Amino acid sequence: MTKKVAIIMGSDSDFPIVKKAAEELKAYGVPFECHVMSAHRTPELASEFAMNAKANGFGVIICAAGMAAHLAGVIAGHTTLPVIGIPIKSSFDGMDALLATVQMPSGIPVATVAVNGAKNAAILAIQMLAINDEELVEKLAEAKRKMIDEIAVKEKALQEQIALL
Amino acid sequence: MTKKVAIIMGSDSDFPIVKKAAEELKAYGVPFECHVMSAHRTPELASEFAMNAKANGFGVIICAAGMAAHLAGVIAGHTTLPVIGIPIKSSFDGMDALLATVQMPSGIPVATVAVNGAKNAAILAIQMLAINDEELVEKLAEAKRKMIDEIAVKEKALQEQIALL
Amino acid sequence: MTKKVAIIMGSDSDFPIVKKAAEELKAYGVPFECHVMSAHRTPELASEFAMNAKANGFGVIICAAGMAAHLAGVIAGHTTLPVIGIPIKSSFDGMDALLATVQMPSGIPVATVAVNGAKNAAILAIQMLAINDEELVEKLAEAKRKMIDEIAVKEKALQEQIALL
Amino acid sequence: MTKKVAIIMGSDSDFPIVKKAAEELKAYGVPFECHVMSAHRTPELASEFAMNAKANGFGVIICAAGMAAHLAGVIAGHTTLPVIGIPIKSSFDGMDALLATVQMPSGIPVATVAVNGAKNAAILAIQMLAINDEELVEKLAEAKRKMIDEIAVKEKALQEQIALL
Amino acid sequence: MTKKVAIIMGSDSDFPIVKKAAEELKAYGVPFECHVMSAHRTPELASEFAMNAKANGFGVIICAAGMAAHLAGVIAGHTTLPVIGIPIKSSFDGMDALLATVQMPSGIPVATVAVNGAKNAAILAIQMLAINDEELVEKLAEAKRKMIDEIAVKEKALQEQIALL
Amino acid sequence: MTKKVAIIMGSDSDFPIVKKAAEELKAYGVPFECHVMSAHRTPELASEFAMNAKANGFGVIICAAGMAAHLAGVIAGHTTLPVIGIPIKSSFDGMDALLATVQMPSGIPVATVAVNGAKNAAILAIQMLAINDEELVEKLAEAKRKMIDEIAVKEKALQEQIALL
Amino acid sequence: MTKKVAIIMGSDSDFPIVKKAAEELKAYGVPFECHVMSAHRTPELASEFAMNAKANGFGVIICAAGMAAHLAGVIAGHTTLPVIGIPIKSSFDGMDALLATVQMPSGIPVATVAVNGAKNAAILAIQMLAINDEELVEKLAEAKRKMIDEIAVKEKALQEQIALL
Amino acid sequence: MTKKVAIIMGSDSDFPIVKKAAEELKAYGVPFECHVMSAHRTPELASEFAMNAKANGFGVIICAAGMAAHLAGVIAGHTTLPVIGIPIKSSFDGMDALLATVQMPSGIPVATVAVNGAKNAAILAIQMLAINDEELVEKLAEAKRKMIDEIAVKEKALQEQIALL
Repeated sequence: MTKKVAIIMGSDSDFPIVKKAAEELKAYGVPFECHVMSAHRTPELASEFAMNAKANGFGVIICAAGMAAHLAGVIAGHTTLPVIGIPIKSSFDGMDALLATVQMPSGIPVATVAVNGAKNAAILAIQMLAINDEELVEKLAEAKRKMIDEIAVKEKALQEQIALL
Repeated sequence: MTKKVAIIMGSDSDFPIVKKAAEELKAYGVPFECHVMSAHRTPELASEFAMNAKANGFGVIICAAGMAAHLAGVIAGHTTLPVIGIPIKSSFDGMDALLATVQMPSGIPVATVAVNGAKNAAILAIQMLAINDEELVEKLAEAKRKMIDEIAVKEKALQEQIALL
Repeated sequence: MTKKVAIIMGSDSDFPIVKKAAEELKAYGVPFECHVMSAHRTPELASEFAMNAKANGFGVIICAAGMAAHLAGVIAGHTTLPVIGIPIKSSFDGMDALLATVQMPSGIPVATVAVNGAKNAAILAIQMLAINDEELVEKLAEAKRKMIDEIAVKEKALQEQIALL
Repeated sequence: MTKKVAIIMGSDSDFPIVKKAAEELKAYGVPFECHVMSAHRTPELASEFAMNAKANGFGVIICAAGMAAHLAGVIAGHTTLPVIGIPIKSSFDGMDALLATVQMPSGIPVATVAVNGAKNAAILAIQMLAINDEELVEKLAEAKRKMIDEIAVKEKALQEQIALL
Repeated sequence: MTKKVAIIMGSDSDFPIVKKAAEELKAYGVPFECHVMSAHRTPELASEFAMNAKANGFGVIICAAGMAAHLAGVIAGHTTLPVIGIPIKSSFDGMDALLATVQMPSGIPVATVAVNGAKNAAILAIQMLAINDEELVEKLAEAKRKMIDEIAVKEKALQEQIALL
Repeated sequence: MTKKVAIIMGSDSDFPIVKKAAEELKAYGVPFECHVMSAHRTPELASEFAMNAKANGFGVIICAAGMAAHLAGVIAGHTTLPVIGIPIKSSFDGMDALLATVQMPSGIPVATVAVNGAKNAAILAIQMLAINDEELVEKLAEAKRKMIDEIAVKEKALQEQIALL
Repeated sequence: MTKKVAIIMGSDSDFPIVKKAAEELKAYGVPFECHVMSAHRTPELASEFAMNAKANGFGVIICAAGMAAHLAGVIAGHTTLPVIGIPIKSSFDGMDALLATVQMPSGIPVATVAVNGAKNAAILAIQMLAINDEELVEKLAEAKRKMIDEIAVKEKALQEQIALL
Repeated sequence: MTKKVAIIMGSDSDFPIVKKAAEELKAYGVPFECHVMSAHRTPELASEFAMNAKANGFGVIICAAGMAAHLAGVIAGHTTLPVIGIPIKSSFDGMDALLATVQMPSGIPVATVAVNGAKNAAILAIQMLAINDEELVEKLAEAKRKMIDEIAVKEKALQEQIALL
């Protein structure tokens, strides 16, 4: 049975960004849960969730947070599951969130994606699950082929615009 | 009775910097404890320490950490005591540690001092304790007067150097 | 008797941000005063205020300033009270104000909070006053519990949004 | 059978850093291969490696590169395997390599770790493989316990240093 | 016969910026082609284009990309033609795209212009072609003279504004 | 009579840098004084110096300070004399000192030179005094001619090195 | 007779910012001229202007430019007059213009003010001219007194706002 | 006849870096000249060189400068030849030189290479000259093949190191 992906966000105001991760997982048919949980405001909740995540059927945890983004690191401190961090842009163009997510000390990695990169966080989670799931591999390969087709369509549209210059 | 100051560092490699905080507290006669504790490697230890700090006689907690410096923020999430953060320089000139320490979300402040500013963290802790301790106030005022004297000595030495130009 | 908190801002244009500090202090029932005062335009006023602040019943001074934010540092040079600095964002995403506030030389700390972090400045001031005020401690603890409840409400709302995906 | 981890570096001068990833994988008993390959100097080699990686028994690919670090992104463009990027510090404190590794466009994620974070890249790869390998999970949990023990030893040493202040 | 200039963009959303390069080339009467092609989403397409560009009559290749802008570097890896990179601003004010374009390793240069500097990319391409084309040199010199005339017009308009102060 | 130039430094540890300003003024025969004075540690001294500077025969004040470099701004707040700021490099490559010196609010300018640019601060002070001193103008012009000669010498030496390649 | 101030801008699009310098000079009754001139597009014009500026009655030259802001430096290379640089914000929050203006090599200073700091550039020019003009000194002192009055008015307005909280 | 490449540096202290450009051009058999010339200290020399460069048989001009690196931009303002800029690292890790070189205004491009990227500047110049020189194309292609061979050698050495882990 496919393991679940957890999507945790530090603030519900991040949902418009984080939603894209949920939508991508849904499109791939990967089961997921989505929760609001703060490393600073609900630290107990966060550490309990992380400690039980594996036993509760999760395979990967995605964490989204802005500013001094500690959520992914704190979750990673409490689990052996791979943790993906999405730095959310809310100050300094997201540089504070990026550095607070990626610059983890030795022993506790966080797999960091681009600032606001929610969709890529989902794809990365799916790639991790796909290491032992050929069906997911095929869906990922299909998505890659689809990107090629989309660019072919865009190329065609571009040529029409160029012709008008 | 004067409350204690806790000095917590994320890694014992930070001690050469953090030591200056301990020395300053000692010079002021303020009781303190110093511990190694990591938000990521020993999260239980850190949260338990923070939750019990007030009951254990602490009045202020100083936290020193580098890179994705989550320690001060995580400690602050578990206590109502004021938490002082010292960003330790180990990458990006300490910019990652500074931003990860100071850019805390609404509700959970960390009183941040300069990168590697361990001595100032101690003085700030003493200033906090001094709000209700006139003896400490007098010591702080004495230190301010001493700085003026020191600069007078340096001014004199400077004039000798200038005379040689 | 609870000591007062001073909130000083370098420019009245900072008031929409700084107001949150005043509102938070009011909500906690902590007495405060709020003044406009510039380290560069009214330096006499600023240094006199700082030198007399303790005698005038203040326990903590909060300073808000943008750009080359010297206000907190200059105030801190004239008092033994703890000084909290709020870097105001007006250029370089507030990086100039952050560095000019936090990077204080040895001997004169400024307790720096996040860029535009006025509410946290107030909470930090309250935490300092609470070191010897159990009533304030209880209010801070209550605020922490309230944050947990608020996140529970947000979690519930989130689940409804997720169900609609 | 455990899938292999590939470690690719853009330049052999990165080996002193990247070596820590190899050592960590070896310590966990995870099979790996290590190669020099450049996105710019040997693009054919790199894309062929990536395209055949899954068929050749790899489960995860770790890429290390500095400056305009394109290697991880280019590899990720040719495979559905999860790709981990280690930004190598050689200019701008590694900021150029970090941004060139992490800021991937939608559709092609790279799981980025800290600048020079080779050991964490290996641990992250192991966490990915462990999603379906309980033996690796147990080794990761053991490593977490060992970190706690190590900090206990360091705490003890610290107390001895403190006693000497 | 004048060689063609290729303009490649990583995403069709960059066209409003990149269009200025096409318009400039058109104004100079330099033949060009414009294509959408991604280093990550259509890597085969990109490398084939680059490998055949010289044989297909191109003299210079202009590449525009944002974020982790790998396109110019990847194209440069596959050709001996000079490659001009336009960093597109989409995050971090374009700093990520600038560094990912300009910080190329030894052996594979990319001639980088300003963030969003599409017009200058075209002029640079024309300057390259003009090394052996006196007609283009004369057009470039004419454009320089025209800039002087334009500033004379602006100077006159400025004096009218000044007179109204 | 030529007015004096004041050189003030926030810390005597800045003297190895600041010395170049004193040497340059000496070489031009411009009278100067050099003092240690801190905006934070000796604020009274600094403001009194600034308030009396004009009456004491100074025409320009040069201030050198590092980190949260408030000295130049504070001095400028107390005088109508032009104030030149030298940001001293001691953290963040001098970026904190540069921003804290140059980003002054409207009404109180500081004429900022490059990080550690002590010699240029002196030349700038001389240029200011030279507005009404033709003898200084001639010395400045002579220095410009000398730079041309120096480069001619270096050009010659370079050609010898090139010949050896 | 008071010497004139020249205000030069690299592009007429900078006039809305630069205008404040002209208005300030006008308010002080300091004669000035304002011109559009580019270090890159009209280099001859710029160098001739600079070489003749002193002979033409100018005492100070203010230069405003954005991006790779070379104007002030190029002007400074051709004159012994003090040159004031205003970095104009048009990309990277003005950081490129700031660094290109302030980081001048030894021998050729540019007196740099804050990003978009046109009013301060004018005040600085007036301070330079005031070194030998007591009438201007008095006007500068009057402006300082006026700033104190303005803050008194703002303080009063603030107290009314505070009363409403 | 192959056109010459000019290498101009703002300071002879840049020669240890710039030398690599000269060596690369020599290795390709491309005629070149190397000169010291400053946009600020010898502006006449620089503009005259640029204006006559084409007539004097140059096809490309390479400029190297640090800090507020105006040299490439100033040269580009006086010629229709393509100008390549090498930002030299001497402060801010070369960020000031990079921005001052690359962020050129519309109309005057500078083909910027990596910080200290002297070898790549030479290769870029050769690529430009090669647009109409098949012999140079063949040499460039040969260099690309050689890079592949070098990496094969390094790969072999790496495998030996890996075997020893």
